[in-house]
Amino acid sequence: MKLEKLVGDRFKERPADCVVNSHALMVRGGYMKYVANGIYSSYTPLKRITRKIEVIMREEMDAIDGQEVQFPVVMPASLWQESGRYESIGKELLRFADRGGSPLVLGMTHEEAAVQLVREYGQSYLKYPFMIYQIQTKFRDEARTRAGLIRVREFTMKDAYSFHTSQEDLEAYYDRCYKAYERIYKRVGVPDVISVASDSGMMGGSISHEFMLLTPIGEDSIAICGECGYRANMEAAETIVRSARDEISDELSLVHTPDIHTIEDICHFLETGKERSCKAVVYQRNSDDRYIVLFIRGDLEVNETKLTNYLGYEIHPAVITEESGLTAGYIGPYNLKGDFTVLFDRSLEGANNLSCGANICEYHYTGLDMKRDAGSAEYHDFAKITEGGICPHCGKAAIKISRGIEVGNIFQLGTKYTKAMDMTYVAKDGSMQYPVMGCYGIGVGRLAAAVCEAHHDEFGPIWPKEIAPWQIHLCAVRPDHEEVREYADRLYEELQSRGVEVIYDDRQVSAGIMFSDADLLGVPLRVIVSPRNLKQNILEVASRDKSFSEKIAMEHAVETLLQLVNDR
Amino acid sequence: MKLEKLVGDRFKERPADCVVNSHALMVRGGYMKYVANGIYSSYTPLKRITRKIEVIMREEMDAIDGQEVQFPVVMPASLWQESGRYESIGKELLRFADRGGSPLVLGMTHEEAAVQLVREYGQSYLKYPFMIYQIQTKFRDEARTRAGLIRVREFTMKDAYSFHTSQEDLEAYYDRCYKAYERIYKRVGVPDVISVASDSGMMGGSISHEFMLLTPIGEDSIAICGECGYRANMEAAETIVRSARDEISDELSLVHTPDIHTIEDICHFLETGKERSCKAVVYQRNSDDRYIVLFIRGDLEVNETKLTNYLGYEIHPAVITEESGLTAGYIGPYNLKGDFTVLFDRSLEGANNLSCGANICEYHYTGLDMKRDAGSAEYHDFAKITEGGICPHCGKAAIKISRGIEVGNIFQLGTKYTKAMDMTYVAKDGSMQYPVMGCYGIGVGRLAAAVCEAHHDEFGPIWPKEIAPWQIHLCAVRPDHEEVREYADRLYEELQSRGVEVIYDDRQVSAGIMFSDADLLGVPLRVIVSPRNLKQNILEVASRDKSFSEKIAMEHAVETLLQLVNDR
Repeated sequence: MKLEKLVGDRFKERPADCVVNSHALMVRGGYMKYVANGIYSSYTPLKRITRKIEVIMREEMDAIDGQEVQFPVVMPASLWQESGRYESIGKELLRFADRGGSPLVLGMTHEEAAVQLVREYGQSYLKYPFMIYQIQTKFRDEARTRAGLIRVREFTMKDAYSFHTSQEDLEAYYDRCYKAYERIYKRVGVPDVISVASDSGMMGGSISHEFMLLTPIGEDSIAICGECGYRANMEAAETIVRSARDEISDELSLVHTPDIHTIEDICHFLETGKERSCKAVVYQRNSDDRYIVLFIRGDLEVNETKLTNYLGYEIHPAVITEESGLTAGYIGPYNLKGDFTVLFDRSLEGANNLSCGANICEYHYTGLDMKRDAGSAEYHDFAKITEGGICPHCGKAAIKISRGIEVGNIFQLGTKYTKAMDMTYVAKDGSMQYPVMGCYGIGVGRLAAAVCEAHHDEFGPIWPKEIAPWQIHLCAVRPDHEEVREYADRLYEELQSRGVEVIYDDRQVSAGIMFSDADLLGVPLRVIVSPRNLKQNILEVASRDKSFSEKIAMEHAVETLLQLVNDR
Repeated sequence: MKLEKLVGDRFKERPADCVVNSHALMVRGGYMKYVANGIYSSYTPLKRITRKIEVIMREEMDAIDGQEVQFPVVMPASLWQESGRYESIGKELLRFADRGGSPLVLGMTHEEAAVQLVREYGQSYLKYPFMIYQIQTKFRDEARTRAGLIRVREFTMKDAYSFHTSQEDLEAYYDRCYKAYERIYKRVGVPDVISVASDSGMMGGSISHEFMLLTPIGEDSIAICGECGYRANMEAAETIVRSARDEISDELSLVHTPDIHTIEDICHFLETGKERSCKAVVYQRNSDDRYIVLFIRGDLEVNETKLTNYLGYEIHPAVITEESGLTAGYIGPYNLKGDFTVLFDRSLEGANNLSCGANICEYHYTGLDMKRDAGSAEYHDFAKITEGGICPHCGKAAIKISRGIEVGNIFQLGTKYTKAMDMTYVAKDGSMQYPVMGCYGIGVGRLAAAVCEAHHDEFGPIWPKEIAPWQIHLCAVRPDHEEVREYADRLYEELQSRGVEVIYDDRQVSAGIMFSDADLLGVPLRVIVSPRNLKQNILEVASRDKSFSEKIAMEHAVETLLQLVNDR
């Protein structure tokens, strides 16, 4: 198409509200427009990109025997009540009512709808396994949107659901889907996406993986072992801590510590390291504000995902009132009285000679021995893994923390949904069984933004060929020049008739404007027709990624360009 | 793909809740599943059909210089407040709030979003004209859903919006889009869809057309002139009535008419035709229950669309209370006292010697002369056009009323949205102007259902080739027979490798079950491989529409089938 007719504005200035490059470039290049918090419209270049990504997803899902279906965006609350998620999911699930007062939700994921669609179909073991998928709009009422298309409220997602008669069969299919995902990332131009073990969160189930594009602007933290290659989302990574235990335990002794509230202050005051202190972190249950007191080694942070998974309910940081029975700033495990949920992180197991709060205002203890003074404590893993920490797989202290954008996830769901929604089949032996499920998702727009994040320079995106909105960006420099106009018009027609997607700039503007617009549209090959080139019987061809620049003969221009488009 | 793996059940019994054939067949054939009132999921066969319809729509929209974009499903209320429709549209617009309390709506149409997307882009006359379109999920909270996919709440729609610098340019483009729509209907297999003049309703604007598939199960009534071909939705059709006027007007005289309430009763009592009576029809304004009294000739019905358009506000049938000042059953134009909105239909203009209510309980008048007794009345067209009525175009009494399904509509919107939302451009002469808009919509699922309604028999849909879910339905009768299995497997592979979409039934079931399933899937060509056929070195090929049945030689089967697929 002609660039002159392309709807959308391109401009130079980086918008003030764009924190990440992909967002800034996609706004500057006329790809997207803000409509409301986390809600965008797409212009044609982005729509062309996302449609190509969708074609690739469809091909890869069909190749692993997926069947494309479609679930509704708007669903009755009753469907989500069946699975129990109408109650268990927070405000991200947007709940509302129709004109008749019937409660509805906006689909943020479609496990319930998938089970509802196949519940009658899947009544015999002979029907299994099968996988259904859709590419559809979803809405997740995020508290915090960010980074343009990276975290939005409304988005398009490819989500797939597989059904099996055994865990082994699920695992085999999970592996096929894992490989299909790798092919998708390769084809869209981000082959270096890695998979990491992840937390299953609200989806339930046991094993799950996220696919991550490593980038400093990512919102996820990933623990990667430099020795054995172990990779996990920090939310899910097991934390291994080797706590020191002195041979001799000191006696517990009360120390007056006025005006000392933080762990830093107390360690400074006592002249000990933070790893020799026992810190209290206090939360409250969302439903009734009951207190949860978690003790952890002073140098570690709490991984709230692990804590929430352990508790099985939603929590928030505590507001410690005078009536609570807790002595804010001086909470310790010894002699803590009151009806709280008290938890201990594994980092404290067996440790001694620790400092801790004395549950008395302005007093701490030294000489805390967990074995002696908190004898009945159970220890669980609630700590965040840290840079330089111990790899839970190989045991070496080689953990590095990287940032990444999650561009896909796959879950082994087990029978969570089929049991809750009473989907059964008759097995070969005549018994009634619940099918086991897997689910597999990739957000289309976020993947496009991630590709842009991975492939751009300061002038614009550098779209990989398979998803570029066009293949050739044709510039007629000086289109008022009769020969330029005639030649460029003909080249445009011929390339199009040969099936090449061409964006054609024949505007009466400076070469500078033409080239900066071409950079913003990020099309793989730029072809320049100009009076000077024509005099030399050549065209200039350059790749957007600057890896390639050549003069080609006018005579065989179409053939040469076709070859370049196909080869590169 | 193999039919054995196709998710979804097919069955013989017509579901009790399916009123129309397309609905019954698409449920029986495993195309769709009920999720909630007016909300369905689609199985693979329907998804394949709608995707093909979408490809056709995209091609035809691109061919008239459309640019595919995407608007959000969820929009902020503020956008709809800008156009004024947040207030003016009824409960079909689903309004709700997000977690932060911000008011949102579910998109039922996207004029506002279209203006928002291009408001900055379209600031110079040089950018015009342009058209943007999307294919996207919409939600309309219909009070009454019906007939499966014909009237739902959630649906996929292709909606397009064009922007112009003059009414002439809009009209020229409107005509191009009109022709593109005709091509779409032809390509999906319903070339006999007709266009009718329509009412613009909540869209605003002046000229608009609906595209109708005529069928007795349609929910729209269409007036068609048997003489000149004039066609209009009954809602929009002008009603021409030639009322009789006797040479001599009788005197107005009061008649005691106890226990007579209906127009039938009074005409019977007075021994006159209904066309010689003046009937009162009473409504109330939704906002404040103010009464609207409409007088119309006794034999005619009120067209409430015309009435609402004239009034400019929403109304409902009246509840006449004792305090209202109206004498229920005896309301007439003479001596009607009270603060009502009083309207007169054109059918009464100049009529005389009519009966009418006397505004006194149990009394009517005879001898009403509209000129003499309702001198100041203004007359407007509020009547429903009737079978045998007068064509407003050619004037002949040749109107026939047919039923139809609306499968598309196009509107000339004028500057309604651009003015309300302050979208302006600088014209060639330097003045600020509002662009004029057109909008153009087709529902994808409804079109699929309409095609099914037009093309089916009692055994299933008969899908036209361009949108059929597959092109060949291959049946291996007796797949346990080794030669059958081998030959059919090979044919399946070969046809697929040649690009033919094949659904392959190699289940160990009776030929009867195979054929009834094939009928329900409605694929254009059925190919039968059986032991008997193999013995004769032939295959049986039959078209789903029964127009064609042939035995073809096994030797050249692939080539012959390719030709049949391409030719038919």
